[in-house]
Amino acid sequence: MNAVDHIGIAVSSLEETMRFYTEQLGLVHMKTEEVASERVKVAFIDAGNVKLELLEPLNNESAIAKFIEKRGQGIHHIAFKVQNIEERIQEIKKNGIRMINETPKLGAGGAEVAFMHPKSTHGVLFELCDKSKTEGE
Amino acid sequence: MNAVDHIGIAVSSLEETMRFYTEQLGLVHMKTEEVASERVKVAFIDAGNVKLELLEPLNNESAIAKFIEKRGQGIHHIAFKVQNIEERIQEIKKNGIRMINETPKLGAGGAEVAFMHPKSTHGVLFELCDKSKTEGE
Repeated sequence: MNAVDHIGIAVSSLEETMRFYTEQLGLVHMKTEEVASERVKVAFIDAGNVKLELLEPLNNESAIAKFIEKRGQGIHHIAFKVQNIEERIQEIKKNGIRMINETPKLGAGGAEVAFMHPKSTHGVLFELCDKSKTEGE
Repeated sequence: MNAVDHIGIAVSSLEETMRFYTEQLGLVHMKTEEVASERVKVAFIDAGNVKLELLEPLNNESAIAKFIEKRGQGIHHIAFKVQNIEERIQEIKKNGIRMINETPKLGAGGAEVAFMHPKSTHGVLFELCDKSKTEGE
């Protein structure tokens, strides 16, 4: 747990939001993909040392749709870059942190991901993100 | 605007929250200071490529106290590292983004900071953070 991989941001419409990040802020759009299991369309923006992960809900059942309905568009989560995610999950549980996902699930770009429960983290949704099987990192 | 300096996180109590970041997550506490003008006590946590800025309100008039009252503890803002902040503010305004602070104000560590208005940014509170006068960056 020694780097932030990305910051997740919930948006109503990627199309409308993209203009802000690319034209108005001048950042670079890296790629867009759908993560069907999470019912989201995801665009990655290069912010230099970290990525901004823009998350648009594909339907009302998406956790992102519920987040936007309750709190509006905005910052959703912080993802730490990890290796050996299953070992990290066990360590974190041993340290008294409750996980939403006790086993990794598939995230954007084929990453293995798992979220900590915000009740254990003083309100922040933290993700563990392991790309070692996809990027050889 | 080519790097994230820190991610701001609103917390009710630094003392209670610090144990989570240092003992449970295993991250390193860098420093704590008061920013009287913002009515906050601020602790910086080293997350490798970025810092986590934990913000505890000093009294009920603090914007952070109001944020916590409305939304609970959690992620508050994303700060981009910039140089020549006054020029950056002019560029951003020219690109159609509304600023909360049209001139920089003093932030933690003697940085010059200015916030964009979330109505211009699809709900994210983005900060510009210029430390070139304090750190020679």
